[in-house]
Amino acid sequence: MQSLNLDLGERSYSIHIGQNLLNNPNLILPQLSGKQVLIVSNITVAPLYLEQLMTSLSQAKPDLVIKTCLLPDGEAYKNLEHLQLIWDTLLSAGFNRNATLIALGGGVVGDMTGFAAACYQRGVNFIQIPTTLLSQVDSSVGGKTGVNHPLGKNMLGAFWQPRLVLADTQVLNTLPKKELAAGMAEVIKYGLLGDLNFLGWLEANMLGLMAGDSLLLSEAIARSCQCKADIVAEDERESGKRALLNFGHTFGHAIETEMGYGQWLHGEAVACGMWLAADLSRRLGWLSSADLERVEKLLLAAQLPIIPPQTMTPATFLKHMAVDKKNLDGKLRLILLKQLGAAEVVDFDNLPLLQECLAEALKKTL
Amino acid sequence: MQSLNLDLGERSYSIHIGQNLLNNPNLILPQLSGKQVLIVSNITVAPLYLEQLMTSLSQAKPDLVIKTCLLPDGEAYKNLEHLQLIWDTLLSAGFNRNATLIALGGGVVGDMTGFAAACYQRGVNFIQIPTTLLSQVDSSVGGKTGVNHPLGKNMLGAFWQPRLVLADTQVLNTLPKKELAAGMAEVIKYGLLGDLNFLGWLEANMLGLMAGDSLLLSEAIARSCQCKADIVAEDERESGKRALLNFGHTFGHAIETEMGYGQWLHGEAVACGMWLAADLSRRLGWLSSADLERVEKLLLAAQLPIIPPQTMTPATFLKHMAVDKKNLDGKLRLILLKQLGAAEVVDFDNLPLLQECLAEALKKTL
Repeated sequence: MQSLNLDLGERSYSIHIGQNLLNNPNLILPQLSGKQVLIVSNITVAPLYLEQLMTSLSQAKPDLVIKTCLLPDGEAYKNLEHLQLIWDTLLSAGFNRNATLIALGGGVVGDMTGFAAACYQRGVNFIQIPTTLLSQVDSSVGGKTGVNHPLGKNMLGAFWQPRLVLADTQVLNTLPKKELAAGMAEVIKYGLLGDLNFLGWLEANMLGLMAGDSLLLSEAIARSCQCKADIVAEDERESGKRALLNFGHTFGHAIETEMGYGQWLHGEAVACGMWLAADLSRRLGWLSSADLERVEKLLLAAQLPIIPPQTMTPATFLKHMAVDKKNLDGKLRLILLKQLGAAEVVDFDNLPLLQECLAEALKKTL
Repeated sequence: MQSLNLDLGERSYSIHIGQNLLNNPNLILPQLSGKQVLIVSNITVAPLYLEQLMTSLSQAKPDLVIKTCLLPDGEAYKNLEHLQLIWDTLLSAGFNRNATLIALGGGVVGDMTGFAAACYQRGVNFIQIPTTLLSQVDSSVGGKTGVNHPLGKNMLGAFWQPRLVLADTQVLNTLPKKELAAGMAEVIKYGLLGDLNFLGWLEANMLGLMAGDSLLLSEAIARSCQCKADIVAEDERESGKRALLNFGHTFGHAIETEMGYGQWLHGEAVACGMWLAADLSRRLGWLSSADLERVEKLLLAAQLPIIPPQTMTPATFLKHMAVDKKNLDGKLRLILLKQLGAAEVVDFDNLPLLQECLAEALKKTL
């Protein structure tokens, strides 16, 4: 088991990464603030892992009051309506401020559970047990929680840190390949935005990673979490450096919004977004064509899409990018690559170049 | 103008108290983080003060983009459904993270606006302009925001500090007497829980205060805010001393929940709750009968109710008090008076005494 400690003052917590952590109640029990536990999961993950988690907890501490709340599976349900199911369950059970929420699922379950915990009685503890590669490397670090609104993704939420994150590599065995790939998009992101060595390591090991090699996956998760943790520790509330973590996301959010949440996986949209950002960086003269080819090859090796949905146009991209919350006071703010392994926040005003980039990407074939 | 500075590190802010502050844009403008301003008010307050606030802001800074969101008036609308109206307005206007929300109204508007700001894009700035005595002395200090749930009051919310609070005594001229009294309940609370001198000052000046004497009101607001600010500064997240501020509230919430929000004003319910807590303190031998009489006389001078609703029973009280969020792990936690001017948190387990206290209060006549 590898462990990272996120140093955030009184909100510090540990991320443990390894095999079979789900059956280790001794990691969880010290982090409960009372006897009331609500496990939030979804209808896909619950049949696989809920019972063993409940059994291991209640055997270790029989006087726990454990309730469950199962959500439908998918980004389409990451909304206020389904968030209320969690609150309804907590209140119907009479749970108080010492209750602990445990998120057992992917990013949607984690984001919703964290937001529910942030707002329940103005804040209760929560623990993340992410069950997808994406959520293990991304949403479990940084304290971002939230839900979508019909007019924008993650528009409602809170910064709320978990007490503990358990990233169990065992659960990735049951993850569909498409979702493994989507998670790999975020792993690749960390190489591209800030770590050229890691990028090289990923290029050398992508086949093994996609084949599900557990030791390689542990290493990739730990390095990704560490990279994100370093950035977040410097900038917990996203005023500066943390914006780099949105590399590929402004384009990606446009795809997700236009297509409707859940049509493209988040990681797929981000992969395409990273390719677009890399191509725009090339058009600015920052990346070479060979650099762009490396990006393209790595994304394709991870079985990720790089061509945007054919139903979109440059105009639909721009429409959605204009309300992206990373854009302050109407300026278009993009994360671009000064070189491979070095991303930068750019106040972007060359609209014709952006339109050209989008138009050519939409015409691209592999 | 009197000013208090709340020292909360990077979330510090000022409370200004005085006449005609609404027309002083120079207090507000330095606290805006961008050009986007959403004023949230309700249909009762807006016709009285919205236009002058908008005019004074836009004359002082013509490039502000000012939108408004008007809520229906009353605690009955302090729920998630109406909270969404604020978010819908922000998103429809394309407001970003640099937007500032201004709450122009009483406690309901303030709590909802603050909660909306806390969650919009994971947190934007807000400014409070409380227009009732209650919200001037209570909800504008301490950063508590939130909405009600059908199963409990203020069950969903966040701790979120305003950038600025303007308590304009001028606006109290248009406040119905019943609401002035409800606000006075919280003022009296500060005397009872921690400041015997202030209690004496209130006994000496209650007639003038209830007659709307503006200098006396300013003094009462400033002293109440200072008292609350001192407690909150010590204990921002309500783990210890801050619980004292809930004096009268556990009983009060039971009344509000049982009667349906809005039937009893919050301050009226708290007044009755304080009387019950004082009477329970007397039954424990901590207050004398003369002490209780002082409490009773002061509450009656402020035109406040002390007898609970006749439709309630000791059992309905207990039912609602058991889910009150101040009670940790099933124990009944009450704020009682060790003596006048000195409240204390008590883990209370003498149910027969509590039932007797409630039963006799329900039979009481004046």
